[in-house]
Amino acid sequence: MNEFELIGEITGHFPQQPDVLLGPGDDAAQLLVRHGSVLASTDILVEGVHFRQDWTTPYELGRRAAAQNFADITAMGCNPRALLVAVAAPRQQPAQWFTELARGLQEECTLVGASVIGGDLSAGESIVVSVTVLGDPCGGEPIRRGGAQVGDVVAVAGRLGWSATGLLALQQGVDVDPALLSAYRRPQPPYAAGPAARAARATAMIDVSDGLLADAGHIADASAVTIDLDSAQLQPDELVRLASQQLAADPLDAVLSGGEDHAMLATFPRGRQGSGQVPRPTFRVIGRVIPRGTHAVLVDGTAHRGKQGHDHFD
Amino acid sequence: MNEFELIGEITGHFPQQPDVLLGPGDDAAQLLVRHGSVLASTDILVEGVHFRQDWTTPYELGRRAAAQNFADITAMGCNPRALLVAVAAPRQQPAQWFTELARGLQEECTLVGASVIGGDLSAGESIVVSVTVLGDPCGGEPIRRGGAQVGDVVAVAGRLGWSATGLLALQQGVDVDPALLSAYRRPQPPYAAGPAARAARATAMIDVSDGLLADAGHIADASAVTIDLDSAQLQPDELVRLASQQLAADPLDAVLSGGEDHAMLATFPRGRQGSGQVPRPTFRVIGRVIPRGTHAVLVDGTAHRGKQGHDHFD
Repeated sequence: MNEFELIGEITGHFPQQPDVLLGPGDDAAQLLVRHGSVLASTDILVEGVHFRQDWTTPYELGRRAAAQNFADITAMGCNPRALLVAVAAPRQQPAQWFTELARGLQEECTLVGASVIGGDLSAGESIVVSVTVLGDPCGGEPIRRGGAQVGDVVAVAGRLGWSATGLLALQQGVDVDPALLSAYRRPQPPYAAGPAARAARATAMIDVSDGLLADAGHIADASAVTIDLDSAQLQPDELVRLASQQLAADPLDAVLSGGEDHAMLATFPRGRQGSGQVPRPTFRVIGRVIPRGTHAVLVDGTAHRGKQGHDHFD
Repeated sequence: MNEFELIGEITGHFPQQPDVLLGPGDDAAQLLVRHGSVLASTDILVEGVHFRQDWTTPYELGRRAAAQNFADITAMGCNPRALLVAVAAPRQQPAQWFTELARGLQEECTLVGASVIGGDLSAGESIVVSVTVLGDPCGGEPIRRGGAQVGDVVAVAGRLGWSATGLLALQQGVDVDPALLSAYRRPQPPYAAGPAARAARATAMIDVSDGLLADAGHIADASAVTIDLDSAQLQPDELVRLASQQLAADPLDAVLSGGEDHAMLATFPRGRQGSGQVPRPTFRVIGRVIPRGTHAVLVDGTAHRGKQGHDHFD
């Protein structure tokens, strides 16, 4: 199967939503834009850095690549509409690997109503999957990182520490609850949190991809505030706690520093009854915004001594 | 320098056009869309497949990565507006390499008035640069591959065979005119050909990235016609002819099968005086559209026996 046949085989798997005016197969795709602007973000997944073929199936890789891009649009309070996917892979990679990757991409697209509208394919020594997502602001202003105000409530939607614990179990070869392994292989961002945060007039939002401390730091720095997290509200989920015992790890490290679950971290104006503006139960309160001090992020009012988020390029 | 510092350093190089509502630095960028839809295309460049570090500087790589994406939007008769750039590179890659890549991307952006609005950065064994371009249809219908009509005139804008001849010289270690090496390292797509083709009501267009025969074949297949090229109109440029002598190569092979110059190949309705609709001198006539026969592309009425276009995945 040559490049053109393989691309034809793969693009055959991608149904197109009505807002796709022109799908894969020409020099460029064309997407209808209903609200005057388009959001765009790109992410790259590299074999040996972000995933290993013996730990992640191509189907899971497709779901993950799509999910982490959709999470970036969700984190703006907007709706993902389309993906473009560039893949480099060794020449001997079987055709079925590509069709499984495509199936994973498509299933995640189906979850949010988006389409794969374009792509590129190349030979390469190792596998690289680069995805660009386009999103619709739905007529409102995107929720940025820099809008947090002193007095706001800090809240999170989605899982914390699941993916990191699953990855640690794979690294140590320890048998933990399969839900944690699945969380690593195929994150499940809380897509409903995007519209919920927008409706509740969130002042800032980010998806937790680098770890809660690191991403809270991004909001704090962009907003020139400090975020004070409340450890009592950050109790690890039961699965994370149990697995961490097996792994001789501190479960709070996973919660504070584990990225890749793509939880949504947001700040909301404080309501009349303390935190009335937080859209529950999608979001749960985990801290508050205070005036900028020496540290961008505190836990229980003091600087946290422990692992920070990860950095692919250190 | 860690990932965040490096991204900060790089994004500092990217001025933003007025249609960028939100540039790099948040979960997603936001681009104003003036005409109700956006065009999008993606391309991946892999070290050892598309380029070698000893043959191409990071500055040239940046220009090339941007240029080949802009060419895809130009080939739709539309205007490139923005790029998103994902890069994987070894951890020891010097920071200056990235800033030079950024400088190349930005200079090509300046040529067409576009902005680098987002990106991602990862460690990786070898260098991979994946670029997504967004384009503005300017209120008209994009020019697709499938609109060529029997009786149309086939015309091309830009260089044919320069890049392929330059690459062959590098591969053979033969000293040829530096303009050919430069054409390989940093292609110069004829950006003005996009609006010119649109104004002249081109029926189909494609950018020549796989080679003239292959890309003419893409138009022919999509339009269910045959394209008959006239070899008398495909005389190699003097530089290509001279270098091909040095390289013991057939210069017509470079013209017919050399990709990567990103010339624009288009079909135009036949005017009253034979080919009155072709916008000269941007485009030059090189053939005609005839009813679909056994072959998608002919040269002087017969199937061409020789090299076809290249295929990165064979």
